[in-house]
Amino acid sequence: MTITAVIAEYNPFHNGHAYQLAKARELTGADYLVVIMSGDFVQRGAPAILDQHDRAELALLGGADLILQLPCHFALGSAQHFARGAVSLLTALGCVDFLCFGSEYGDTAPFLELADVLLHEPEEYRELLSGLLRNGLSFPTARAQALSAYFSDSASFSSLSKEELDTFLKEPNNILGIEYVQALLLSQSRIRPVTIRREGSGYHEGALFTHALPSATAMRNLLFSNPHKDPELSALASCMPEAVYPAFQDAVTAHGLLSSDDFSLLLAARLLTETKESLSSYLDLSPDLANRILRQRHACSSFSEFALQLKTKEMTYTRISRALMHLLLNQKTLYPAGYNRVLGFRKSAGALLKEIRRRSSLPLIAKAADAPRLLTGDALAAFESDIQASLFYETVRSHKTGTQFVHEYTKKLVLL
Amino acid sequence: MTITAVIAEYNPFHNGHAYQLAKARELTGADYLVVIMSGDFVQRGAPAILDQHDRAELALLGGADLILQLPCHFALGSAQHFARGAVSLLTALGCVDFLCFGSEYGDTAPFLELADVLLHEPEEYRELLSGLLRNGLSFPTARAQALSAYFSDSASFSSLSKEELDTFLKEPNNILGIEYVQALLLSQSRIRPVTIRREGSGYHEGALFTHALPSATAMRNLLFSNPHKDPELSALASCMPEAVYPAFQDAVTAHGLLSSDDFSLLLAARLLTETKESLSSYLDLSPDLANRILRQRHACSSFSEFALQLKTKEMTYTRISRALMHLLLNQKTLYPAGYNRVLGFRKSAGALLKEIRRRSSLPLIAKAADAPRLLTGDALAAFESDIQASLFYETVRSHKTGTQFVHEYTKKLVLL
Repeated sequence: MTITAVIAEYNPFHNGHAYQLAKARELTGADYLVVIMSGDFVQRGAPAILDQHDRAELALLGGADLILQLPCHFALGSAQHFARGAVSLLTALGCVDFLCFGSEYGDTAPFLELADVLLHEPEEYRELLSGLLRNGLSFPTARAQALSAYFSDSASFSSLSKEELDTFLKEPNNILGIEYVQALLLSQSRIRPVTIRREGSGYHEGALFTHALPSATAMRNLLFSNPHKDPELSALASCMPEAVYPAFQDAVTAHGLLSSDDFSLLLAARLLTETKESLSSYLDLSPDLANRILRQRHACSSFSEFALQLKTKEMTYTRISRALMHLLLNQKTLYPAGYNRVLGFRKSAGALLKEIRRRSSLPLIAKAADAPRLLTGDALAAFESDIQASLFYETVRSHKTGTQFVHEYTKKLVLL
Repeated sequence: MTITAVIAEYNPFHNGHAYQLAKARELTGADYLVVIMSGDFVQRGAPAILDQHDRAELALLGGADLILQLPCHFALGSAQHFARGAVSLLTALGCVDFLCFGSEYGDTAPFLELADVLLHEPEEYRELLSGLLRNGLSFPTARAQALSAYFSDSASFSSLSKEELDTFLKEPNNILGIEYVQALLLSQSRIRPVTIRREGSGYHEGALFTHALPSATAMRNLLFSNPHKDPELSALASCMPEAVYPAFQDAVTAHGLLSSDDFSLLLAARLLTETKESLSSYLDLSPDLANRILRQRHACSSFSEFALQLKTKEMTYTRISRALMHLLLNQKTLYPAGYNRVLGFRKSAGALLKEIRRRSSLPLIAKAADAPRLLTGDALAAFESDIQASLFYETVRSHKTGTQFVHEYTKKLVLL
């Protein structure tokens, strides 16, 4: 049995994701595709536009066989924490053969070469990096420049030319790919990396389509372009597989769409009672950022405006958004991977689940309400913190839309 | 110099209040009228519809000479705590001669007679009261029945007949009057009570006018009758003195109107992280109420709906609303009166302020930003807790209306 995994957010699912799943199945000859997907919050420090259950359904309709949840504290972490969390959860399944990730490059060689440097941090590289950080660059920028300089000065790069390497390091998807490969090497995982060249638009571009493949960012921009009007979903019909779009429509109609700015009042009110000490206790929230937050807290007119206000050369908008979300969700602890939670699966994936149950080194949670009996210690604490995040998400969602609050424990597994 | 005080909420100010001020001036021959007014939150456990600065302006336009603030923890307290707080602040001024309060009865004799019983709690009365409370009556109902029974069985009432007494005890304004008189007796205040018969509608009635005098409850109902539409202010023009209405219009246009349900999402989100222990630490929040809150917290679709859900025979809607507001405002301490804060005054009241400064036994805060230099210990803690409440109010107000947040320290004294 060949099992291939994909790490994703699907915020929302689109043709590019369907293409990646089909390609992953084809390239690796997979019998089953396992997707580990961000839960109710995503890596850019925001709520997912639809909750994890709705997004799991869309992903199953789009070609996945099993959806596992990437818990909130991993999903809201740095690219490194995100990648290491996802890889350790996949590795713990004990039966995954391949990890497929999209990139702007179709070959894993440069990923392996770069991951090796980042993992072993040669003295020369470390000095270059700390010099650039001291100069006030943000970590992602400093790392890209340090790698480029390292391969110019101290070592030769075999898989790409100097110019190709510089271009390579500018693409966020490549950076995430390097993190995945690093995480695989670090955990001595049995999973082999495979990369699929993204055919879609560059991540930073605003166009809805490039080469007929959509961008999730552009889709979200369209959905939230007029906060006073219900979104025109039909414009997105051509961005999604035919099997997915009707379920997307249903989910939006039933549950609405969330964005960071639905958390604005909660953030502004919360900041009133924080101190430098309390702020510094949250994940990703440095004492320096705590000071800036305290100085500007009365000017928090919206979540996104406030994150923009706090942005500096050293600290990206995304990094700040993640810190603010950690604060709202009371997240203070980097838990290790302690369980795998199933969000949904195709009925045809019975053999896959059986194989996972046989091989997995971590408890598999199929029914959230059972977790308190199956987990202990840190794993239970991590699970409870994730449930709190989902309850918080659902509270904001139900108040925004005026629809009923449904407890995370009573939301059903998606079975297709 | 004769100085007469009135305790009020002015939520909002109307003709009945103007009548009471004029009558108080006339009856007591007052040179100056001092009003002590609830700040940004009022005794029924709700935000005031306009902030304390706007309401102070309306009250000055309506006939008052000086507006002092009744701090939030007094204003959100039980009738007894509310009355004792206001009376101790007025007594501390050292120069107030009369306290005028509205009631459904025009003579202070029954107030004095009832206050004396409540203050000294004769054995027979105490037994009657605790029996009724054990039977599950709410405190206000049990007290009224115990007083009625006490005067039938054990003592004779000189100022009213048995039937008159029963009617007397049914009126919330009379109950508050008894609390004022009790507080005056308890603190051996030099201030003499005077009551003015309310000519307006009964407090519980829904009619906007009775005998040409309006009801603040009916006015609020009208203002909030359609949450999706801006209120028709013009219907209220005839409820307010001509000098007051234009300023009311301006205040609503500039700052909007708040109600409890503007705090719904904040309450629902806040409840997610509370425990029985944390809930029980807030003022007026009993362990039994904490349990009921925890059992129902996921059904908190709005502040007012939730308070209704939690209501029982033993615990009134108002009492529950106050407890929920204490929770939102983190209020855990019953501070004693520690300062008097001026919200506004007429320029013609210079001599009054001079007299107060000479006689007052508590610091007089005219500029909020100066308070941290003028206050220490409990008084400073009480002041800071009150400022937090105002910042919370202003945060909700500015987010609701999309207007600028103005810090309490930069809001100006109202000078007329």
